[in-house]
Amino acid sequence: MQEIDFMNRAISIAHENVVTNNGGPFGAIVVKDGKVIGVGRNEVTRTYDPTAHAEVQAIREACKFLGSFQLTDCEIYTSCEPCPMCIGAIYWARPKAVYYACTKSEAAKIGFDDQFIYEQLDLPIEKRSIKMKQICPTNYDHPFETWKNSTSRVDY
Amino acid sequence: MQEIDFMNRAISIAHENVVTNNGGPFGAIVVKDGKVIGVGRNEVTRTYDPTAHAEVQAIREACKFLGSFQLTDCEIYTSCEPCPMCIGAIYWARPKAVYYACTKSEAAKIGFDDQFIYEQLDLPIEKRSIKMKQICPTNYDHPFETWKNSTSRVDY
Repeated sequence: MQEIDFMNRAISIAHENVVTNNGGPFGAIVVKDGKVIGVGRNEVTRTYDPTAHAEVQAIREACKFLGSFQLTDCEIYTSCEPCPMCIGAIYWARPKAVYYACTKSEAAKIGFDDQFIYEQLDLPIEKRSIKMKQICPTNYDHPFETWKNSTSRVDY
Repeated sequence: MQEIDFMNRAISIAHENVVTNNGGPFGAIVVKDGKVIGVGRNEVTRTYDPTAHAEVQAIREACKFLGSFQLTDCEIYTSCEPCPMCIGAIYWARPKAVYYACTKSEAAKIGFDDQFIYEQLDLPIEKRSIKMKQICPTNYDHPFETWKNSTSRVDY
């Protein structure tokens, strides 16, 4: 299969997702060595999970398949340019490439507007529209100290 | 319980998470009307899921509990300032407030550096360190058209 075939697969998942009333019009797959190792579709409304975007679901499935929390040498094909949450997930998963079809401006036109989140991320924390505030009880950094001193920790 | 007690709970989850070798030193809870309705801990390494940050896990559990993909009137207490992926998840879930203990600079000192992801999000897509490229087969926007015309879709 070629790039265009993989992308068609992601798009057909997105399309099917609308027809089946599963969630938003988004699909994604993870490919390694020319094989699909993870499939994801937007399941926000059906599963009551605001984090269940197609890319997140595909990353989770592919990582489970690989028995690894990294997508080394993998490619993600997604029917739409990823939102900031999914881009964050992609950087944590570290695939080698991401291909997308629709753009975020096209998504905004049908009501999925990521621009607001990009703008919020760039604001100082005290200026964000959702209140974000530091609270520091005694020994608030104790978990970090324990992590530093742990001899059995799995770094990532 | 008061703010400080909820934060101590999130911190103690983070601490326990290191001791049990479950994942990174991070814990979070979701509170509604003074009650804990979701608990999350970093499970990246144990479950091979790079998206299993404490905040994401807590959001998922709380949404499932509420039977809603929105955390209306909820507060999130997290042992550390959320990363860009988790901030994205927070904006999609829309709680009323987020309280954190450790800062992202403290997290960076023990090897969890979100700064890189913030910088990547601000770059034009073609300049990002992970290759991101548009591929548009014929009818690539078909899922969006179907979504617009669907009479049974659940908007969110």
